[in-house]
Amino acid sequence: MRFFSDNAAPVCPEILSALADANRLDTAYDGDRWSQALDARMSQVFETEVRALWVPSGTAANALALAALCPPHGGVLCHRNAHIQNDECGAPEFYTHGAKLMLLDGAGAKITARAITEACALIRDDVHQVQPHAVSVTNATEYGLTYTPDEVAAIGAAARERGLGLHMDGARFANAVVHSGASPADLTWRAGVDALSFGFVKNGGMNAEALVFFRPELAEATLYRRKRAGLLLSKGRYLAAQILAMLDDDLWLRNARAANGGAQLLAEAAGERLVYPVEANEVFLKASAAEAAHLRGLGFDFYDWAPGEVRLVLSWDQGEEAVRPLADAIGAL
Amino acid sequence: MRFFSDNAAPVCPEILSALADANRLDTAYDGDRWSQALDARMSQVFETEVRALWVPSGTAANALALAALCPPHGGVLCHRNAHIQNDECGAPEFYTHGAKLMLLDGAGAKITARAITEACALIRDDVHQVQPHAVSVTNATEYGLTYTPDEVAAIGAAARERGLGLHMDGARFANAVVHSGASPADLTWRAGVDALSFGFVKNGGMNAEALVFFRPELAEATLYRRKRAGLLLSKGRYLAAQILAMLDDDLWLRNARAANGGAQLLAEAAGERLVYPVEANEVFLKASAAEAAHLRGLGFDFYDWAPGEVRLVLSWDQGEEAVRPLADAIGAL
Amino acid sequence: MRFFSDNAAPVCPEILSALADANRLDTAYDGDRWSQALDARMSQVFETEVRALWVPSGTAANALALAALCPPHGGVLCHRNAHIQNDECGAPEFYTHGAKLMLLDGAGAKITARAITEACALIRDDVHQVQPHAVSVTNATEYGLTYTPDEVAAIGAAARERGLGLHMDGARFANAVVHSGASPADLTWRAGVDALSFGFVKNGGMNAEALVFFRPELAEATLYRRKRAGLLLSKGRYLAAQILAMLDDDLWLRNARAANGGAQLLAEAAGERLVYPVEANEVFLKASAAEAAHLRGLGFDFYDWAPGEVRLVLSWDQGEEAVRPLADAIGAL
Amino acid sequence: MRFFSDNAAPVCPEILSALADANRLDTAYDGDRWSQALDARMSQVFETEVRALWVPSGTAANALALAALCPPHGGVLCHRNAHIQNDECGAPEFYTHGAKLMLLDGAGAKITARAITEACALIRDDVHQVQPHAVSVTNATEYGLTYTPDEVAAIGAAARERGLGLHMDGARFANAVVHSGASPADLTWRAGVDALSFGFVKNGGMNAEALVFFRPELAEATLYRRKRAGLLLSKGRYLAAQILAMLDDDLWLRNARAANGGAQLLAEAAGERLVYPVEANEVFLKASAAEAAHLRGLGFDFYDWAPGEVRLVLSWDQGEEAVRPLADAIGAL
Repeated sequence: MRFFSDNAAPVCPEILSALADANRLDTAYDGDRWSQALDARMSQVFETEVRALWVPSGTAANALALAALCPPHGGVLCHRNAHIQNDECGAPEFYTHGAKLMLLDGAGAKITARAITEACALIRDDVHQVQPHAVSVTNATEYGLTYTPDEVAAIGAAARERGLGLHMDGARFANAVVHSGASPADLTWRAGVDALSFGFVKNGGMNAEALVFFRPELAEATLYRRKRAGLLLSKGRYLAAQILAMLDDDLWLRNARAANGGAQLLAEAAGERLVYPVEANEVFLKASAAEAAHLRGLGFDFYDWAPGEVRLVLSWDQGEEAVRPLADAIGAL
Repeated sequence: MRFFSDNAAPVCPEILSALADANRLDTAYDGDRWSQALDARMSQVFETEVRALWVPSGTAANALALAALCPPHGGVLCHRNAHIQNDECGAPEFYTHGAKLMLLDGAGAKITARAITEACALIRDDVHQVQPHAVSVTNATEYGLTYTPDEVAAIGAAARERGLGLHMDGARFANAVVHSGASPADLTWRAGVDALSFGFVKNGGMNAEALVFFRPELAEATLYRRKRAGLLLSKGRYLAAQILAMLDDDLWLRNARAANGGAQLLAEAAGERLVYPVEANEVFLKASAAEAAHLRGLGFDFYDWAPGEVRLVLSWDQGEEAVRPLADAIGAL
Repeated sequence: MRFFSDNAAPVCPEILSALADANRLDTAYDGDRWSQALDARMSQVFETEVRALWVPSGTAANALALAALCPPHGGVLCHRNAHIQNDECGAPEFYTHGAKLMLLDGAGAKITARAITEACALIRDDVHQVQPHAVSVTNATEYGLTYTPDEVAAIGAAARERGLGLHMDGARFANAVVHSGASPADLTWRAGVDALSFGFVKNGGMNAEALVFFRPELAEATLYRRKRAGLLLSKGRYLAAQILAMLDDDLWLRNARAANGGAQLLAEAAGERLVYPVEANEVFLKASAAEAAHLRGLGFDFYDWAPGEVRLVLSWDQGEEAVRPLADAIGAL
Repeated sequence: MRFFSDNAAPVCPEILSALADANRLDTAYDGDRWSQALDARMSQVFETEVRALWVPSGTAANALALAALCPPHGGVLCHRNAHIQNDECGAPEFYTHGAKLMLLDGAGAKITARAITEACALIRDDVHQVQPHAVSVTNATEYGLTYTPDEVAAIGAAARERGLGLHMDGARFANAVVHSGASPADLTWRAGVDALSFGFVKNGGMNAEALVFFRPELAEATLYRRKRAGLLLSKGRYLAAQILAMLDDDLWLRNARAANGGAQLLAEAAGERLVYPVEANEVFLKASAAEAAHLRGLGFDFYDWAPGEVRLVLSWDQGEEAVRPLADAIGAL
């Protein structure tokens, strides 16, 4: 059993069904009935009027969101370990036409309102220095931690005070929602978030993510940027249908609940071995090379994160039941 | 029955099967077995060593190809009616970081070696003028015409003489291959093509196109550009599997043959009404508003291209048999 | 005597004096007293509140102006023979991050309100096509013609109706003002111009041009773009001082009057040989190769523009008196 | 007497003379005799064949150099306090089309070969992470320290080993040369430098800097980029003439020697108050608010760098004699 990445998992059966159901003639690009239904459906989920665009990757969602919030000569404050900084090969710089990522520190890849305020205070207000225009947070973070609505709201307030837009990279937004128990609205726009990369692929989807704008006017230019980037797929209904299927009957929450549940089971078994609290579907464990080899010998595979540390990522199909053998093996180390 | 666009058609059943077959855990991004098989499979198709990258749209393939062939300060010669100029919202400019499209004339959206040479002769060789670095041809063209291998070779020679790279937008490459009877190799690298956008979506695929480099070294930087553009989907196997399924048992040729066949039947019925010779899966007809209304009354729908002209695009599932009623209706006008 | 280009001429003595006068310690960049005086001085010239930035080249002024008026995914309507299209190596594309120049026809490199309206009518209002966001006119044009205030106003109205910004490339604005007899205000903002590249270098300056914003809010982001482009010279006072010297005692108008006067004298001598009406400081003559050689034999040099056509550009120091020998020689051909 | 910035100083008299001497008709842009002489003259200075381009600012020189060494998807290793990171409003990102600056630590704003090697070791060699393509060092640094030829050579070797280009920001290159006693060649290409921003403006010039390529082939594309950026001034002779005047009779070294000398005198007077060793023309002093106020009361002005620290920058006209009163005042604190 492999715990490398939630991107390695297969897609859940509802997604394949949705593709089959959508397999009929309709209008190209995003003129089809599925794409046209997205705004309304997402507005229900978020209890406010939003604009929602499908895109084929989380990197695309993030980069388009940042381009909507930050001009080429501006900067985006984010954590030093953020996916947008470390794992997107400069996509934010490409889409924003050269904005600068301004790196903040913080435990577990989380940033704070205070870190934002302090960083801004060090920037001279003149044309020689890049001025920040936006903040980006990842929820759940790259280390599997989550933000509470209050934490996001504090960041949102700090951003607003300085006139900065707020983006949330929600590649694992579902896992964060499930853990927090908060509503999607409370975790986002009510806390000051302007744009959300709402991830579905890591959560059992195939190749559709949503970019949700809580300030609907931001969507207009983004529609052109999406096309211009080659991201407006010509048979868009196969993306929109995935997202709608995920939202139907709260499949997105069920899938995330399963993965989070599997992670919790491992966390309990791991005890003192945990590097970070487990709040989503990622588990970072202290494990010696010998211990890691032992687990692999039992048929479990995962990522060597750092010397003496391994990372396990749980997928929608790796709930409590599925991972119990691994939990037992970890407990027995 | 609708003839709006080959993007409006459903995907062919083999594609859905391929997605289901690929639905298992594997490595993320393009590390999976399907993605890893692309280079070898495409090298067979083209009888030479190529590098082949999946991308989710033809616009992405085109823009990445042009970025590989033209620096930001350069220019790309193409037809005034090329898709890259008229229908991609500036994607070439985005990916090349501002290269200039230099527009050529030519019947049926085809360009000639002579047009290239004449255009180049008018450009002063100094730093004040944008210097051309590449040529882009569309085969089949936006008006449904195709290039013969000799025509491409003449263009390739003119390009090489001036030191220009040659890109082929093959959104409907399959239709061109079928019409020409030539081998994929003869229509591309043997005629001087450096990079091909090899389309599958209009030909029955869902959301996978291939970008094929006949000069393999061009692929290296493109791998970074693909990631940087948010085009490296995290579950790439679902794209690679589509392309492989299309190549299996020449499905891509069978689908194109069907669509071309349907178009030929309409062409024969249309006779003098044809605006352009029909060489692929597009039919441009002279039809008065009353005639168009009459056909629509019979249940056929299509695009009003220009006053007195309509465009019909045939899909993989609109072969001779399927379109016979329309052919009869056109013949009876 | 050479008539190649107004860029080839020396600078006028007042410019050297101004540089010597400014040669004292002051604040760097644009914090000095000369730079700080520009807004007010230009506001007097234009009879309204403007923001004026010095830049070291006309290309920089043009490109910054277009970047202020057009987003990366937009387009700029301009004449096919505009300097921004033909002589700036893609500077507009660089500064706008890839906007598209949309080329219009028109006699003498002039565009009309009608050409704008017709071009816009052909652009589909969807995300697949680049949408125009700005218009750029050159006054005096690349062929030495000028716009009347009414002509500019008609263009301004057509632009406004479509929501487009209006830029004027005034590399030879002084010559246009002198010819028209209109006020700078009437030729610009009162006619709908949003941003003017106000040229001084071709008119006797050394390396300072002004970018004037009639919508002052456009200046804010441009200040960052200017710095980011390496155009915020560290000893800016030597640029600002040039511009102020040019405005003092209407030196800019006197210089232009001289050059225009020289051109008129040549025009009268040329009679039927004129290719275009002479309205500024450029004279396009029909002249056989033998005639051109004859004139060169007499010590006059100029640019071979096209087969059977030569171009002569008059500088601030080539007024009537200076060019009389050439006028006589032309008359005697 | 002000010690704010070497940009605040007037230009030295030889520069004004050179401008007057160049004030005659010649070819526009860089076709004139002065511009055409630059390559040969700089090749003498550096004892090897170089290409040298004038540009009007150091930021422009830096950004063009980085664009020549690093593709849009690459990264540039530099010190966290480098001018290119902190004081150019994102010019490197603009000119490189979005490359990422990768920040290194090091005392006195100096980086080391080891820091480069360590930073590279942390970067995964995959397409998800931006790969470094170049290194940039500032000599003298932003804190007034210099690199020895051996230190540069070590950095050059580390860069070459990883395949990275090496840029030197020499806004104060003259001061570094004077301090090191090394030849310009030893401090640059013999130590592995590929491109040098050779500063003259801070050293008594008006608005001309040189971008020197030790790999001449790098100049070709840069000529287009310079034009495209609006940096190819139309009367380039007034820039080239400044640079030639600076090189004549080693004026550049004499000016730097004066400024360095003034700084040394202050350094000796400052003793324990020095924050950094003084190796060029910048002096960072510990001084309480009261002490700073006292000095200002005596007529000396300078920059408050940080709480309890002030920065004094010496200009070409602030040699030992001129600054003795300030040295005395510092000594008497």
